[in-house]
Amino acid sequence: MKKLAIGVDVGGTNTVAGIVDAEGNVLVKGSISTPKHGDAAKYIKELADSIKDMIKNVKSLNPDSEILGIGTGAPNANYYKGTIEHATNLSFKGIIPFIDLLRAQFPELKYLALTNDANAATLGEMIYGGAKGMSNFVMYTLGTGVGSGIVINGDLVYGADGFAGECGHITLIPNGRYCGCDGRGHLEVYCSAPGMKRTAFELMSKYNATDSLLADKSFNELDSKMIYDAAVAGDKVALEVFELTGHYLGMGLADTVHILSPEAIFLFGGPTAAGDYIFKPTIASMESHLMPVFKNKIKVLPSKLKLGDAAIVGASALVWKEVEKQQ
Amino acid sequence: MKKLAIGVDVGGTNTVAGIVDAEGNVLVKGSISTPKHGDAAKYIKELADSIKDMIKNVKSLNPDSEILGIGTGAPNANYYKGTIEHATNLSFKGIIPFIDLLRAQFPELKYLALTNDANAATLGEMIYGGAKGMSNFVMYTLGTGVGSGIVINGDLVYGADGFAGECGHITLIPNGRYCGCDGRGHLEVYCSAPGMKRTAFELMSKYNATDSLLADKSFNELDSKMIYDAAVAGDKVALEVFELTGHYLGMGLADTVHILSPEAIFLFGGPTAAGDYIFKPTIASMESHLMPVFKNKIKVLPSKLKLGDAAIVGASALVWKEVEKQQ
Repeated sequence: MKKLAIGVDVGGTNTVAGIVDAEGNVLVKGSISTPKHGDAAKYIKELADSIKDMIKNVKSLNPDSEILGIGTGAPNANYYKGTIEHATNLSFKGIIPFIDLLRAQFPELKYLALTNDANAATLGEMIYGGAKGMSNFVMYTLGTGVGSGIVINGDLVYGADGFAGECGHITLIPNGRYCGCDGRGHLEVYCSAPGMKRTAFELMSKYNATDSLLADKSFNELDSKMIYDAAVAGDKVALEVFELTGHYLGMGLADTVHILSPEAIFLFGGPTAAGDYIFKPTIASMESHLMPVFKNKIKVLPSKLKLGDAAIVGASALVWKEVEKQQ
Repeated sequence: MKKLAIGVDVGGTNTVAGIVDAEGNVLVKGSISTPKHGDAAKYIKELADSIKDMIKNVKSLNPDSEILGIGTGAPNANYYKGTIEHATNLSFKGIIPFIDLLRAQFPELKYLALTNDANAATLGEMIYGGAKGMSNFVMYTLGTGVGSGIVINGDLVYGADGFAGECGHITLIPNGRYCGCDGRGHLEVYCSAPGMKRTAFELMSKYNATDSLLADKSFNELDSKMIYDAAVAGDKVALEVFELTGHYLGMGLADTVHILSPEAIFLFGGPTAAGDYIFKPTIASMESHLMPVFKNKIKVLPSKLKLGDAAIVGASALVWKEVEKQQ
């Protein structure tokens, strides 16, 4: 009997789902639009139909397979309650009883669980990726925002109300840049992809850098991939963007280390594809901010999850973790 | 059979020990000098003799009592290894196998454990104090430094190497005041008792406050109790010291909340005796720095441990926690 888990990732535009084996291979996957109509029950029915098709598909190829459950990563997900709460980038208003709605569609599946996408990625790293065998680590996901997941004693930290792991919103610079959450100077406003763009425009303003490769892009055009390409081409502004992004991120990682004493910190997401451009200054800054007792022993590693499948694979990891918990 | 636990607190000057019942009452206590001779084995022998006297004393009063074990709070303690490592304010050099030395003296006791003093206080709060029944909380201990202990899912967080909980060393102000750990701008340099003194001198310099009640004290004379007395008397500088200390502490608490999502944060130590002077600005600052999802639900509470016995009582809590773990 080949055991399989389903992973679902609810995004603002699309919801992707896939069936994943115990080694993290995606056997089949699909996608539906995350609707704008705000009717959660209708949406879950549509999602369930799509998943049922996938199950049929996989079962025809692997007649001896067993589906254990469905793990879902979603914004503003509350693990304890199985709800999506006041997600500003989804059309569903208020509190959506996601797991209850899903259970009505799959009464035969024992393991249904929901958490936010950064936590799902963190579990993915632990179950299938570079954190296999680690009991204490942290994962930062760098993208449109900065999310994080924390593992202590082998378990994901949800905190008192299920919302732990908002490391993207620790304050780095008092009265610094404005954050989407209404705060200021948070890690996210410096180390997310849009944060890197803001740094680029700050630096062009500082140096009046008319000759920068980035100087012909509008604020709405410029993205972190363009900054990376410019850095590779030797553009001074772009190179300094990576230096500063690493400087800020390292400060935040050092805070995380002082609080949690992890074995390793994993970095995941688009900007981490820049490799040494981002890892070198990040590690240098973290080390310079660490107390002596923590110096030269915290590993800062790239995630081993494949960027394309990470959302599905991470979400499916929730299922294996639930199986482990209930055994 | 009345079950009892022994608590030991290793300080720079004195080592205090006491026998504590399950309700946190100290039945008997004593103290020896923490020696300057650097001979750990000799010191542990002396400590053991003192503890043996106490046990004899308690057993004569309560013939049906049973001593379960010894919990110790000490600087630079490594819970996993039972060692005290490179403690700069103790005379013992290098790594002291504290638990091994103690076990040789008490082979009949099953539960021997060691952790740092902030962690011991945190366990004390959970076993005997205001955190009874809480599974996710944080404790900040304000004194000469700022320590902290973190409880997640009912367990103290030690991290990968036993040194988690250094919340006093998260960075609040980039390139801020110098910290004893070689870092800069850490929470400890603003929110410890000496940090409050530094703030007082900064403010007197800023305002040329020759009429402040604090203006006749030298840098080495002024302490946080004097600042409190001056604040009660309406001294403007002293009042602003509390405002600023609360402002800084609230920033740090908000970071802690974003990362860990605790149910409550407890404040312990000398400066917290100032009550509203410190709690009000701390809570206001924390709330102003929190993301919406965390606002108005994190309790900030004074520790319920009695200041005088807290070190012994906290250390003894380690024993009950070990008993619970091994059952």
